[in-house]
Amino acid sequence: MPESPYDRLVRLLKRADVIGSALDVLQWDEQVNLPPASQVRRADQLSALAELHHRAVCDPAIGEALAALEGDSRPEGDAQKAAVARARRDYERATRLPAEFVAAKAALDSQAFHAWKRAKSHSDYSVFAPFLSRQVDMSREEAGFIGQADRPYDYLLDKHDPGLTEADVARLFGDLRQQLVPFVKEIVARGVKSRRAELKGFSIAAQDAFLRGVVAKLGFDFERGRIDVAVHPFCSGDGADTRLTTRFDEDDPLTSLFAAVHEAGHGLYEQGLPLEHLGTPLGKPVGMAIHESQSRLWENQVARGRPFWAHFEPGFRQSFSSRLGGWSSEDLYLAVNTVSLEPIRIKSDEVTYNLHIILRFEIERRLFAGEIAVEDLPEVWNGLSQELLGLIPANHGVGVLQDVHWSGGAFGYFPSYCLGNMIAAQLWYAALATLPGLEAEFARGDFSRLRGWLRREVHAHGRRYDTHELIRKVTGADLAPDHLMRYLKERYGSIYLPATR
Amino acid sequence: MPESPYDRLVRLLKRADVIGSALDVLQWDEQVNLPPASQVRRADQLSALAELHHRAVCDPAIGEALAALEGDSRPEGDAQKAAVARARRDYERATRLPAEFVAAKAALDSQAFHAWKRAKSHSDYSVFAPFLSRQVDMSREEAGFIGQADRPYDYLLDKHDPGLTEADVARLFGDLRQQLVPFVKEIVARGVKSRRAELKGFSIAAQDAFLRGVVAKLGFDFERGRIDVAVHPFCSGDGADTRLTTRFDEDDPLTSLFAAVHEAGHGLYEQGLPLEHLGTPLGKPVGMAIHESQSRLWENQVARGRPFWAHFEPGFRQSFSSRLGGWSSEDLYLAVNTVSLEPIRIKSDEVTYNLHIILRFEIERRLFAGEIAVEDLPEVWNGLSQELLGLIPANHGVGVLQDVHWSGGAFGYFPSYCLGNMIAAQLWYAALATLPGLEAEFARGDFSRLRGWLRREVHAHGRRYDTHELIRKVTGADLAPDHLMRYLKERYGSIYLPATR
Repeated sequence: MPESPYDRLVRLLKRADVIGSALDVLQWDEQVNLPPASQVRRADQLSALAELHHRAVCDPAIGEALAALEGDSRPEGDAQKAAVARARRDYERATRLPAEFVAAKAALDSQAFHAWKRAKSHSDYSVFAPFLSRQVDMSREEAGFIGQADRPYDYLLDKHDPGLTEADVARLFGDLRQQLVPFVKEIVARGVKSRRAELKGFSIAAQDAFLRGVVAKLGFDFERGRIDVAVHPFCSGDGADTRLTTRFDEDDPLTSLFAAVHEAGHGLYEQGLPLEHLGTPLGKPVGMAIHESQSRLWENQVARGRPFWAHFEPGFRQSFSSRLGGWSSEDLYLAVNTVSLEPIRIKSDEVTYNLHIILRFEIERRLFAGEIAVEDLPEVWNGLSQELLGLIPANHGVGVLQDVHWSGGAFGYFPSYCLGNMIAAQLWYAALATLPGLEAEFARGDFSRLRGWLRREVHAHGRRYDTHELIRKVTGADLAPDHLMRYLKERYGSIYLPATR
Repeated sequence: MPESPYDRLVRLLKRADVIGSALDVLQWDEQVNLPPASQVRRADQLSALAELHHRAVCDPAIGEALAALEGDSRPEGDAQKAAVARARRDYERATRLPAEFVAAKAALDSQAFHAWKRAKSHSDYSVFAPFLSRQVDMSREEAGFIGQADRPYDYLLDKHDPGLTEADVARLFGDLRQQLVPFVKEIVARGVKSRRAELKGFSIAAQDAFLRGVVAKLGFDFERGRIDVAVHPFCSGDGADTRLTTRFDEDDPLTSLFAAVHEAGHGLYEQGLPLEHLGTPLGKPVGMAIHESQSRLWENQVARGRPFWAHFEPGFRQSFSSRLGGWSSEDLYLAVNTVSLEPIRIKSDEVTYNLHIILRFEIERRLFAGEIAVEDLPEVWNGLSQELLGLIPANHGVGVLQDVHWSGGAFGYFPSYCLGNMIAAQLWYAALATLPGLEAEFARGDFSRLRGWLRREVHAHGRRYDTHELIRKVTGADLAPDHLMRYLKERYGSIYLPATR
């Protein structure tokens, strides 16, 4: 029997994906293992493989298979139909960018990264501004190549989260902001003191053993995955070989744990995608926001909750025998759920984190709408920081220059983080409604029912549905910020605003 | 200025080499990090990259550049001339094998590997014989494609060690055998008892720390290299990123140490090759025998010697405080230099090891000369084992089936190990003659002069000279077994046959 056009498409996509996955391994190795003086060699390897990957992704045979499937040889069933549509989208986005543009962008990314590092270390925005300007221009150009010159920011959002538009995000973030800003003010006004900073001298070997136990209990499959150490925690690879990283600090045992649980949430998504469709749209994640919802749900709704700690607190105390002598369970729970206003996003908690994202979205939105210019950013940043967080960063290094993302032209990416929080909360209440007694199982150390539900409801579909469609399908409702606000009020109200219980 | 044909050749060779080096990283990762259930994915990645690498190596543009350099655009100077000749050889060998042959060989390698594993675990040669037969046939075919159908074993030897012929090896091994067999008999007859088996309960963390210290002292550059753990120790990568592995056993601290030093010897060669020529014939190792000479020289001549232990013994004792209480320095030195007749090559010592290789060469030689058939191997093996080692293996699993090499059709490879020992000894005496006071420096923990000499005399030339040429150039004499015999008699005579001192 001759190969059907759909089978041919799948074979070609899988082939390209295998090359991409080899690239992933080299990138993982760069963060985890690479000797310092081997970086030049690694850069050469990455660029050679990226070129080969790009060539495989743009293979004209993929275009021919797609054309056949869009013509006489219709795909069979809705799943295949969706897969063909997603593959078409990916193929267009890969093939429409001219090689010179891709090369110029790669060169700019590298220059802008180094300029950003210099600018940040000297708190000197002027060093970075020209490169940022060029990145904004190139993002506009990119949108133009894809045929969306008139709505560049819509293109950038959709690129990370299929189906999302600027209008969606503006509405969602506007609503959230209105409710969240006064809530944070209320919490901060209470002045409840966390003892988190007192957690010092926690053996790294014991932290490592404890978090591995937790991650295994949550259901991460170490038969096809591993955990290592990297400066910035991440999850790399796919369901065939899923690699998490965390980082350790003797004087901060909670960061390593929650980083590991967060990355394990990403890993559980990858491992939950149908392996038989690996490398094709039916075996790939929907986008960044859904991905982030999986990491946040495990990190926040699950692992910062009382039932989780009811199960793990004894083991945590045992792992660090002498360290938690004078600590009550409530002390520990408060340390896990410490809220404080910080200028730096990655040091913030799950409540105020969302404000950091709203700030960045507001800037990106205005920038691409032409309402502000690149040179206005420091002032706009500080103004928004005052409005949202009630503080102005001490300098631009901990303000407008704090994040690496813009140096790589990753506009439209930040919103995924906050959208992920919203989706996590919305999925959480859907799970609680469908799975009665769920949290009682957590308290017994059993997380299998939630994992199975997520796998069935979210992971199993791969990229078949876009972000909105999937949320509607699983929760029966449109994406909305109310679930996140409800969750934050329940969890943090009970700790910080006990009168509101 | 337009790119010269030589520069073009170099650029193309480097590009192919970069892809090959990415493949190396994935292979290293497979041995060191790969989760067990991720092997299928890794096989797909390796095969995709191998195909891309092969395509780059066979790029017709390389053939064009070579043709230009062999025609009107002569290379400049002898080094370039040699590089072009080596590149031509590599290009011919890569391009003359038809794709169907390469694919059939890869499939056979995999089948034969699994058959060998089954055969070994059941000590049943008949399971492996048909695959071995096919490998012999394919090696003959391969020699035919390269135009050496009439001398297949010469081709196979030269493939691993440029310049070597069957006649060379037969003469060298014949001479060595004549001197070595009676010497081993004499040693064994003395019945000197080593206490090596008493070394038990050595902390792995302390072993690891100690061997890292040793490897650093020998001059391995950890800025562009690392050491990890793997089941079978190896050295992977190149001078830009050199990765050693060792293995640990609490009850055998010397194996981890000598494996690390051995692999560090390979690593020092890679790191000593001129980095500016990385990926071209002037930046590559000559062949397996020269490579092995580097590992053996550091492992045996240096690290099994009295000056080395004069320096490291105090640290070794300190690392394992309570473990060496009743041990004299001579006890330790004898443990490091234990000689015993074993059926298994990888468990043998540096004296009897050579007999294991002579055995394999003798079999390969007769097999390709048509003097024996694949089905005769068990009998021939046992007969040679009796002649050379004075023992017959208890079963074929520890006899003819003990090594993996033949399952991959790696004929002509084993001789490199013994040739490496010969070359190491020949280089060693050349170094001692040129560098007076060398061993006194070792006793002070200074290995820099030997390392510098090897780098200058051996490493700096890359593949400019073939095996024989390089040995002649460095030592002023043809490769001969006398140096190895002299070294073995000096070292082991002084321990086992004190009357002969």
